[in-house]
Amino acid sequence: MDQAASAFEHKLRTFAADVEARLARLLDGMLRPAEIARPARLIEAMHYGALNGGKRLRPFLVVEATRLFDGPADAALQVGCALECIHSYSLVHDDLPAMDDDDLRRGKPTVHIAYDYATAILAGDGLLTYAFDILAAPETDLPDAAKVALVLELSRAAGIGGMAGGQALDLAAETEAPDEAGVVQLQAMKTGALIRFACEAGAIISQRPTEDRKRLRQFGEIIGRAFQLADDLLDVTADAATMGKATGKDAGKGKGTLVALKGTDWARTELDRLVTEANQVLAPYGEAARPLTDTARFIATRKN
Amino acid sequence: MDQAASAFEHKLRTFAADVEARLARLLDGMLRPAEIARPARLIEAMHYGALNGGKRLRPFLVVEATRLFDGPADAALQVGCALECIHSYSLVHDDLPAMDDDDLRRGKPTVHIAYDYATAILAGDGLLTYAFDILAAPETDLPDAAKVALVLELSRAAGIGGMAGGQALDLAAETEAPDEAGVVQLQAMKTGALIRFACEAGAIISQRPTEDRKRLRQFGEIIGRAFQLADDLLDVTADAATMGKATGKDAGKGKGTLVALKGTDWARTELDRLVTEANQVLAPYGEAARPLTDTARFIATRKN
Repeated sequence: MDQAASAFEHKLRTFAADVEARLARLLDGMLRPAEIARPARLIEAMHYGALNGGKRLRPFLVVEATRLFDGPADAALQVGCALECIHSYSLVHDDLPAMDDDDLRRGKPTVHIAYDYATAILAGDGLLTYAFDILAAPETDLPDAAKVALVLELSRAAGIGGMAGGQALDLAAETEAPDEAGVVQLQAMKTGALIRFACEAGAIISQRPTEDRKRLRQFGEIIGRAFQLADDLLDVTADAATMGKATGKDAGKGKGTLVALKGTDWARTELDRLVTEANQVLAPYGEAARPLTDTARFIATRKN
Repeated sequence: MDQAASAFEHKLRTFAADVEARLARLLDGMLRPAEIARPARLIEAMHYGALNGGKRLRPFLVVEATRLFDGPADAALQVGCALECIHSYSLVHDDLPAMDDDDLRRGKPTVHIAYDYATAILAGDGLLTYAFDILAAPETDLPDAAKVALVLELSRAAGIGGMAGGQALDLAAETEAPDEAGVVQLQAMKTGALIRFACEAGAIISQRPTEDRKRLRQFGEIIGRAFQLADDLLDVTADAATMGKATGKDAGKGKGTLVALKGTDWARTELDRLVTEANQVLAPYGEAARPLTDTARFIATRKN
């Protein structure tokens, strides 16, 4: 690993600790003193599902995209935590027996294993709901117009035109494999939409004009594709110990991935091309975009 | 049934058709032409779960509470539909095998029976997410400040301090029966919170001062208690054919209800008392509050 990559990974790890601390504070504050009974087991399961040592790449993108425009850092961290609640809920529900049926996530038992099936369903529901609580809360110091835009974009990125719809298409893909265009669409929804939102959110938080929103959205779409492609590549090349979860599952289930359809050599070339394209989209911002383009490179070359 | 009650039920049925039509339009419009792949089965399941002939009592309360303040009727209908998406999602998830394990809902197969387990989980997630899309969407013609207040209050009413937390406590109650105070808290969260939100939403939509919000919230809390008490009473007195779902289930599972703890005579007296209390809370609004107090009476005396 070269020095620049190592410095970036150090920065990302430091940031992940900040997110974890804020997220823990937010989850602890969920029930204010005046509120009623405390469903202790559910709250524990939500903590377990959300505070699990994730890379916090999505909040990192929100914060760095906001920094590009000199936007408010604290609000960006709040929005990043809201987004991480959505991401965490999707992992909790995707791991359920009726969905992907995974027992391990980052080397630890998944929520329905550590708790129980009903609690895992409710913990996912609770995290999904809490994301919108965070966006609207007074502690997220943003003008109402920005909050409304964030609620709208996040609900669309997470909903049936985005992540949830992508997961439905992914389940359908187990019985009828989609063609290349189908795979691209599915992945743009399932994993791309939240990454795209993370980037666009920076422009919304910073109250920038439509042009900046569009540019960040485009950057987010490109690195979302790179993220998924790198993931599919790791699925066939890495081992379970490195990934902290079962690998080779997608191929085993006959799920179409671009790597399966077009090979690992093509995938590596395509990853390089996507990083170049991402850099070009942010070129108008010059050197200020460096943290974001570094992130694009990290996404394309990550080893786990 | 007396004539006033019959007139009220007719009004509610007519209104339910309006909600159904708006909700169908909203669900059909979920994916705009520019958007990507269409997860057809998921969208069908969401329609099935939301457009199921419900009484639409919660949207009715939103619209009537808004009318009390001469607030915008169309925005109230939109907010009512958002709330109904939350209510529908909760039914879809509560019916799942890991939760209450119900095969029938209003006399029809529940979503996981009509479709499958994974689709039912995702349909619930999709409806929950879409509620916030509706609140923030440009088609919901309200100032941003009102939208933010609605997102905050709805996420709290639906989240772990409200409905989802109440469902968790309800599941826990199957193994360890709560005392009377515990049952009251659980029910205030599980079913009370959304009904309370419906009433308070009318004051938010109409941009009324805090005092009106508080008063409507208080009214909502009281009729929420009445709603649950009437439900528990029906559970022991009505038969499955009238209810369109299994009855006697709560008693069978040993779940504590106030009816089980204090008897049916007490429950009938308490229902009368709650209706009187609800009327008193709205007394300052005079005759204009009649549709809401009629609703309180309907809730307390309903037969299914």
